[in-house]
Amino acid sequence: MRIFKPLKHYSTYSASHPPAFEVALGERFCVETADAYRGKIQKEEDIPTLDRIPFENANPQSGPIYIKGVEKGDTLVVEILDIIIKAKQGATTMVPDMGGLTRTDITRLLNEPLPPRTKICPINNGLIHFSDTIQIPVEPMIGTIGVAPEFEAISSLTPGPHGGNMDCPDVCVGNKVMLPVFVKGAFLFLGDVHAVQGDGEISGSAIEVPAECMLKVDVVKKRINWPRIESKDYIMTVGSARPLEDALRIAMVELIEWLVEEYKFDKFDAYQLCSQVAKIRVAQIVDPLYTMVAKFPKKYLKK
Amino acid sequence: MRIFKPLKHYSTYSASHPPAFEVALGERFCVETADAYRGKIQKEEDIPTLDRIPFENANPQSGPIYIKGVEKGDTLVVEILDIIIKAKQGATTMVPDMGGLTRTDITRLLNEPLPPRTKICPINNGLIHFSDTIQIPVEPMIGTIGVAPEFEAISSLTPGPHGGNMDCPDVCVGNKVMLPVFVKGAFLFLGDVHAVQGDGEISGSAIEVPAECMLKVDVVKKRINWPRIESKDYIMTVGSARPLEDALRIAMVELIEWLVEEYKFDKFDAYQLCSQVAKIRVAQIVDPLYTMVAKFPKKYLKK
Amino acid sequence: MRIFKPLKHYSTYSASHPPAFEVALGERFCVETADAYRGKIQKEEDIPTLDRIPFENANPQSGPIYIKGVEKGDTLVVEILDIIIKAKQGATTMVPDMGGLTRTDITRLLNEPLPPRTKICPINNGLIHFSDTIQIPVEPMIGTIGVAPEFEAISSLTPGPHGGNMDCPDVCVGNKVMLPVFVKGAFLFLGDVHAVQGDGEISGSAIEVPAECMLKVDVVKKRINWPRIESKDYIMTVGSARPLEDALRIAMVELIEWLVEEYKFDKFDAYQLCSQVAKIRVAQIVDPLYTMVAKFPKKYLKK
Amino acid sequence: MRIFKPLKHYSTYSASHPPAFEVALGERFCVETADAYRGKIQKEEDIPTLDRIPFENANPQSGPIYIKGVEKGDTLVVEILDIIIKAKQGATTMVPDMGGLTRTDITRLLNEPLPPRTKICPINNGLIHFSDTIQIPVEPMIGTIGVAPEFEAISSLTPGPHGGNMDCPDVCVGNKVMLPVFVKGAFLFLGDVHAVQGDGEISGSAIEVPAECMLKVDVVKKRINWPRIESKDYIMTVGSARPLEDALRIAMVELIEWLVEEYKFDKFDAYQLCSQVAKIRVAQIVDPLYTMVAKFPKKYLKK
Repeated sequence: MRIFKPLKHYSTYSASHPPAFEVALGERFCVETADAYRGKIQKEEDIPTLDRIPFENANPQSGPIYIKGVEKGDTLVVEILDIIIKAKQGATTMVPDMGGLTRTDITRLLNEPLPPRTKICPINNGLIHFSDTIQIPVEPMIGTIGVAPEFEAISSLTPGPHGGNMDCPDVCVGNKVMLPVFVKGAFLFLGDVHAVQGDGEISGSAIEVPAECMLKVDVVKKRINWPRIESKDYIMTVGSARPLEDALRIAMVELIEWLVEEYKFDKFDAYQLCSQVAKIRVAQIVDPLYTMVAKFPKKYLKK
Repeated sequence: MRIFKPLKHYSTYSASHPPAFEVALGERFCVETADAYRGKIQKEEDIPTLDRIPFENANPQSGPIYIKGVEKGDTLVVEILDIIIKAKQGATTMVPDMGGLTRTDITRLLNEPLPPRTKICPINNGLIHFSDTIQIPVEPMIGTIGVAPEFEAISSLTPGPHGGNMDCPDVCVGNKVMLPVFVKGAFLFLGDVHAVQGDGEISGSAIEVPAECMLKVDVVKKRINWPRIESKDYIMTVGSARPLEDALRIAMVELIEWLVEEYKFDKFDAYQLCSQVAKIRVAQIVDPLYTMVAKFPKKYLKK
Repeated sequence: MRIFKPLKHYSTYSASHPPAFEVALGERFCVETADAYRGKIQKEEDIPTLDRIPFENANPQSGPIYIKGVEKGDTLVVEILDIIIKAKQGATTMVPDMGGLTRTDITRLLNEPLPPRTKICPINNGLIHFSDTIQIPVEPMIGTIGVAPEFEAISSLTPGPHGGNMDCPDVCVGNKVMLPVFVKGAFLFLGDVHAVQGDGEISGSAIEVPAECMLKVDVVKKRINWPRIESKDYIMTVGSARPLEDALRIAMVELIEWLVEEYKFDKFDAYQLCSQVAKIRVAQIVDPLYTMVAKFPKKYLKK
Repeated sequence: MRIFKPLKHYSTYSASHPPAFEVALGERFCVETADAYRGKIQKEEDIPTLDRIPFENANPQSGPIYIKGVEKGDTLVVEILDIIIKAKQGATTMVPDMGGLTRTDITRLLNEPLPPRTKICPINNGLIHFSDTIQIPVEPMIGTIGVAPEFEAISSLTPGPHGGNMDCPDVCVGNKVMLPVFVKGAFLFLGDVHAVQGDGEISGSAIEVPAECMLKVDVVKKRINWPRIESKDYIMTVGSARPLEDALRIAMVELIEWLVEEYKFDKFDAYQLCSQVAKIRVAQIVDPLYTMVAKFPKKYLKK
């Protein structure tokens, strides 16, 4: 298996960056990813400040990976074969003016900011040692994955139709992520692996680790509008927006349109059925756009 | 077991309604509840219009149930022993200008409304027959349950600190609902049982059924701000607000405060831990306030 | 002119309160209103705490005023003839967890609350003495005015279709406020006069004063959905909701519907014209629902 | 006066575009701007479709203009000396899934879209002929103006800290716009002149015209976070975000910080004073982020 070891990381999703690795459809390959702090947070004294992690260094991405045989208008399918954590510990932080339960750069208030804070958690035998009494099983996931947009250069802190910083625990081993392709070759980027993450990533930070991600890519010759995910039990759609209900509306309308187009549901039947059986994941409410996932159980799909 | 068969139903949560039933702490009792349409939707031709279900008749509540020995400032604990569906079918509807994926009375737009629509689903052997090919296992829950607020009379369509129309699937058999008490005797109301409901109750309607609810009530002599739920595996807090992120912020801050006060977590430890292990339920995004549930796994609670 | 001096004030808008004063259509009358703190904030040491102003005493309302000849479904027209400030000073406060630039009971965050604070401003010769160097001309307005809802009892802190705590500077001398009538006699309430208020009432408090309000009431035999205001130069519609865009959408759709129904505009012509000539007032973003006003210049109304 | 006639227009704000024109501080110069439809909407049959105006051609910008002597961290001051409309008519449209009172790409719903629609309005003698009976005085403004961000390439449809598509009627003749500088030379872009625009630009389109903009640029050697505007009577701050209250919170906190830093107000005095005298402009609620303007009357500024 070929391994992509990036010489350089990027903080924007853009087709203006030169392809750094090239893969063929069906090829299995491995991508080394840096942690979200670019390795600068190693002990609890390393508190996250703008000095330590300037904006241009936040959430470094490995890529662009040029996918041969993929055109604008296609759907790129990324299968996640494995995620291997490459550190003996993970870091989780409180970055001032970032997080779901604090004033932020977007929700500006006159209250004082929360203090910056770093927690280092040893990881061994598949357990994250959050404290002496609390050990959390590892459930690795890729926080940030996506393709280049057509014209813009989008910060790696932001999710969108191109994927990006979705921080969704369903982007995990065994699942497939489908991404709309905006430029020839797709220009795949990824990074920001989490050893584990709760719904909402409420403090703004998961257990952040460097990793190796084993992937296989494929293509479907049809157009989608927003990322989709498939697991053993669910088909899923991802929406990112503010306020949070708009992220959910995007995901849900995309899910219903999927049921109509591919599974031949009547639109309002699908709407009324989702009201009974759909599941919803709050992926994150801490990034510049929030991310929601709408899930439909495969067992109710028509044959 | 005594059975409360209401002679009258109410569409507001208010201490100005005379108590209709009185129970003692620890007593097991049964409450008959009408379906959300007050029985007026029985076949698919019964489409939901303002003629058929005028606002003053929507979501009829059984109550008030006066709980002896409960004072303002206490926490009422309602244990749900059983929920028995009392019909051979359930109805789910599309009410114009209501629902999560449509213009509404609150999100006013110039687009045309969605059509009204009724779907009747036979229920037997624990299965809801949504269509010839789709059968959904029954998972009954109480959509609306709460106590009288101190001064206001709140519509039974609205959730809030008093509980009310939370439409939360975790209000189900085996779980305990904790409610803040605002007036002596609590004045418990309930109704709106769902045979099953998806996350978000996205169309605005679950499988609506009449039911019998077997309950037991208890009291805790401390004050809470918002409803809480306890299941075998989770402690949960409920928040209702708009936009959706504010409902989640309420639930999450209440959860963290619970962890701090009762389980002696440091506040920021709890915040950072929730970012790794908390689960979030989108209860509904269709009522005048939206409802979110924050869940903390009991296995991580300190002894 | 008859004067209504309330013996009692209310903190809810409800038809369950007994009428305290009765007026005829066309009659000019005067209503005494208490300030929003019920007179409990008189000097800068009187900081606003829950002890001093318990929730049940906040924003006391004068009423209900029964309007003879007004039926459910009518529109009540309240002309504001004069507002006389009945104090030599006004108070403005910072109430913890209330205001537009702070964490609140609805936007719950982990940041520390802002401190409580009281500022007393002498008023004389039509000037409010905010500080030694800043004097603000008096522009009195009625912060809270409305009618009883049909079933609910709504807190006087909340605005809605019934009016209530709209905190809109256009509710001032010379203007007419139109309110939908939900119960026979309308049950008019008012209070919360401001000596002056900025757009948004951003700190959550204006220059709060007791007052005498000279009013005249009339009726129009048609139904409206939300409050409307008419001034010399504008017709205006009022919407209250969260998030803020929903308040604006309500006001704007109501404005367009008014232009269509009464002034015979084509719906989309009205939409496209409002995009060029409409004005928008942010009334307040500090109450449980936010209030926006959409204004159409009378000079563009068709004859 | 030198005139910048762009050979090419851009749809992103980015420092990766080569400077097309270079000016010195203090120089008066003229910029030709295309209309928002790139001239493709000339008659009412030209309805706005994705064929006619593909995304990559929407809202074309003139620039980048390199400003000599301006460094990262500075504030660029752009004085608007004149705006000359270069057409005998303006176009206003309804673009499907765009606008303040419709489902959109962000607020995804199941309702049918509004129809596309074009209205052509002759302009002469300073009047816009909206219809036979309605003539609106011309009040020209620059809809989109800003500088390059540091790393990203931001769509010309989106506003932000860099300025961009703010659609603010206060960006008009006689006023000064202050912009934070992120890259050496600032890389100024502008376009999207409106012959007139209402608050909120509610349909998503003003009276769109090509124009010549006479400008003068200056620099202040201090850092600001978001655009500011100064008129004869007001100092103003601009915030862009969703939901709308967050745009307002940004603008208001920036305004208070300006009052504190430059005019030596106490922070909470400024907060309490703004609650009495601030004005708020809803610039637009139709772009990917909404824009609000907070205004403080200069007459209350300390000497």
